[in-house]
Amino acid sequence: MNRPLIAMLTDFGIKDHYVGVMKGVMKRICPAAEFIDITHDIPPQDVRAAAYMLATNYMYFPEGTVFLVVVDPGVGLQRKPIAVDIGDYTFVAPDNGVLSYVLAQHKPLLSVEITEGDRISRTFHGRDVFAPTAADIASGEKLYEIGAIISDGLNLYPKPQLKEDKGIIIGEVIYIDHFGNVVTSIGDCLWLDDETLQLKPRFYPEMNSRPFSVYSELTIAGETFTEINRTYGDAPRGSLMALVGSNDFLEFAVNQGNAAQRLDVKVGDPVTIIPKQERR
Amino acid sequence: MNRPLIAMLTDFGIKDHYVGVMKGVMKRICPAAEFIDITHDIPPQDVRAAAYMLATNYMYFPEGTVFLVVVDPGVGLQRKPIAVDIGDYTFVAPDNGVLSYVLAQHKPLLSVEITEGDRISRTFHGRDVFAPTAADIASGEKLYEIGAIISDGLNLYPKPQLKEDKGIIIGEVIYIDHFGNVVTSIGDCLWLDDETLQLKPRFYPEMNSRPFSVYSELTIAGETFTEINRTYGDAPRGSLMALVGSNDFLEFAVNQGNAAQRLDVKVGDPVTIIPKQERR
Amino acid sequence: MNRPLIAMLTDFGIKDHYVGVMKGVMKRICPAAEFIDITHDIPPQDVRAAAYMLATNYMYFPEGTVFLVVVDPGVGLQRKPIAVDIGDYTFVAPDNGVLSYVLAQHKPLLSVEITEGDRISRTFHGRDVFAPTAADIASGEKLYEIGAIISDGLNLYPKPQLKEDKGIIIGEVIYIDHFGNVVTSIGDCLWLDDETLQLKPRFYPEMNSRPFSVYSELTIAGETFTEINRTYGDAPRGSLMALVGSNDFLEFAVNQGNAAQRLDVKVGDPVTIIPKQERR
Repeated sequence: MNRPLIAMLTDFGIKDHYVGVMKGVMKRICPAAEFIDITHDIPPQDVRAAAYMLATNYMYFPEGTVFLVVVDPGVGLQRKPIAVDIGDYTFVAPDNGVLSYVLAQHKPLLSVEITEGDRISRTFHGRDVFAPTAADIASGEKLYEIGAIISDGLNLYPKPQLKEDKGIIIGEVIYIDHFGNVVTSIGDCLWLDDETLQLKPRFYPEMNSRPFSVYSELTIAGETFTEINRTYGDAPRGSLMALVGSNDFLEFAVNQGNAAQRLDVKVGDPVTIIPKQERR
Repeated sequence: MNRPLIAMLTDFGIKDHYVGVMKGVMKRICPAAEFIDITHDIPPQDVRAAAYMLATNYMYFPEGTVFLVVVDPGVGLQRKPIAVDIGDYTFVAPDNGVLSYVLAQHKPLLSVEITEGDRISRTFHGRDVFAPTAADIASGEKLYEIGAIISDGLNLYPKPQLKEDKGIIIGEVIYIDHFGNVVTSIGDCLWLDDETLQLKPRFYPEMNSRPFSVYSELTIAGETFTEINRTYGDAPRGSLMALVGSNDFLEFAVNQGNAAQRLDVKVGDPVTIIPKQERR
Repeated sequence: MNRPLIAMLTDFGIKDHYVGVMKGVMKRICPAAEFIDITHDIPPQDVRAAAYMLATNYMYFPEGTVFLVVVDPGVGLQRKPIAVDIGDYTFVAPDNGVLSYVLAQHKPLLSVEITEGDRISRTFHGRDVFAPTAADIASGEKLYEIGAIISDGLNLYPKPQLKEDKGIIIGEVIYIDHFGNVVTSIGDCLWLDDETLQLKPRFYPEMNSRPFSVYSELTIAGETFTEINRTYGDAPRGSLMALVGSNDFLEFAVNQGNAAQRLDVKVGDPVTIIPKQERR
């Protein structure tokens, strides 16, 4: 019989005791729990980065994994703490958008606001609110036992736009990694709802089978790309390229360089794909 | 049936193999052991910081947890390695004061000097002395089986002074965290022996229910405080404040700033609480 | 019954999700697996450093441990991924020399090239090739089930030279740690094959029982040593010394200083031991 698994994603760092004590708290409540650290080095309070990292990694974990995600710029509990069940996985997090990219892929089955009265904390909600909730869920408690069902929606980032009638795709920069690679919201696994099911066959087949440029032009920060590479090594050292990274998102990178600096872009900047005239 | 839990607190960092190999050694001796890293980034050889971090976190761990604490400025085994049982928890550490703040809360039931003859090491006592001992204890060995009972006391830091007859409390700075927050030895959970059982009702009720200034004046580094805040967010950005932190210690902080630099204080500097004349 | 243990050694760092997602992947395949991080902070692409750290630590882990070692400067899978069984332990790694120092101690019982067809990855072989293979082995799969047996040898670093007929030992610098300690390939546990079984009795008895200088002269970067210390503390602060470190390798160190800078040496530089005329 498998033991319950809790995967953690925070911006607490590991120099202090924060992560360790949260695990201690969880072990008290759920002695069988095991932990995997996805990372604790999300840039401080960078909810977008955490949302991206979560959305591109959760599906590699065993079904039943509870994700404990604590990245929040708010002071105190301005953002309500929530738990969200998407079927194979459960997420415990502040309601600040950090689940946006996961919930773009999976409609939540049930969302609750964590309300247990004795979980009040002066300054460390990770230890006193989020960790105990994750451990309760790992122990088998049902979401409706630990909070009040949320019926009026969660705080989520808007999805990337898609002007479908003209075939134009407009996305945005969602993450810049520590190499300076620029990750966009245009991806394979990210937008599997109605809109993006239409995006995929348009975008990917040509990318995989023939030159991207046959159909489309990709633009970011005034630079236009007519090819999409498969790996970092496909382009000469120092040259700027577009590629689909290991997380299946459209990225911009410089082979052994920094694409974010080269392009001078930041999170939120637009990326556009415009179809060329078809040559029938 | 729960598996034995070993919580680790060291200054070894995680860039090298030290922590990993200690876990390997413990798994050889106690295959069922599980590990939680409290932190391995205690400032090198900062015994006081480790003592503080241990004392404010151990109580969150499950009963039966073995704490493996290795922070020691000594070369070789100048400080004898000890194991201390306080009932719910056992600690394996050098006898250099690192258990001071824990043992201010709990009288040890049994302390032993680790003496096993084959545990001699040239330069890495963490791997060859401390880790095997922690694993033996996690495996169920009794303390009197792994060492010689200590009857003449341990090396402990002095407790903070309390001039009880005049109602004056004198504590000291015990820790400065990486944000520059200044933590003092005056706290809720720390001094639960005879002295501090008297400290609590004097200190805390007024702090929680009405202005601290009604009864007391708090002084550090020439600065006097007449209020104690509840969270970092209670004071304007950039202003210096006193507060009781998430670990229930009296701290000084600057909202989004560095209190240690502002006050120009260091570990060991005094903090004083003087009662005002009562207004009956 | 013990649970399978996977020990990880990479240069991925822990700021990103790489290590966490590899563990998630392994838990999907082998739910009972437990993980120990030896380190993920090998200097980027420093295969030699990883080889040294692995060879000096693997023997402390429980028998049956699977070592997952991913440090590789190559782009894509230029180096073939391999799995090597040495009896008590199994190693999953790229075939780039990272197992050299382990395999200098133990002839492999079986080496295979990982070939499973569905394990093709665009850019993250750690997650898509190496981790699943380690998990398969931890689950009990046999090496011949997961790859093609390698009969024509692995890519290994050359062993240190030994001019036995004249009694001269020539080794080399294999690692410089973050304190600047200079580790050489001359050691106790490293070279246990035919050659080094001869090296040990010549080298170690005199080191342990009487002045090293009675028989030998040790030279590196033009400096000659006539003594070998036992611990860092044996030499005055600031003085350069030779010693046998906690990993049983011959090292050069400066007590509270940086030996690599003092000697101006780098990995690969030679170290020589020349016997003096015997005084019979």
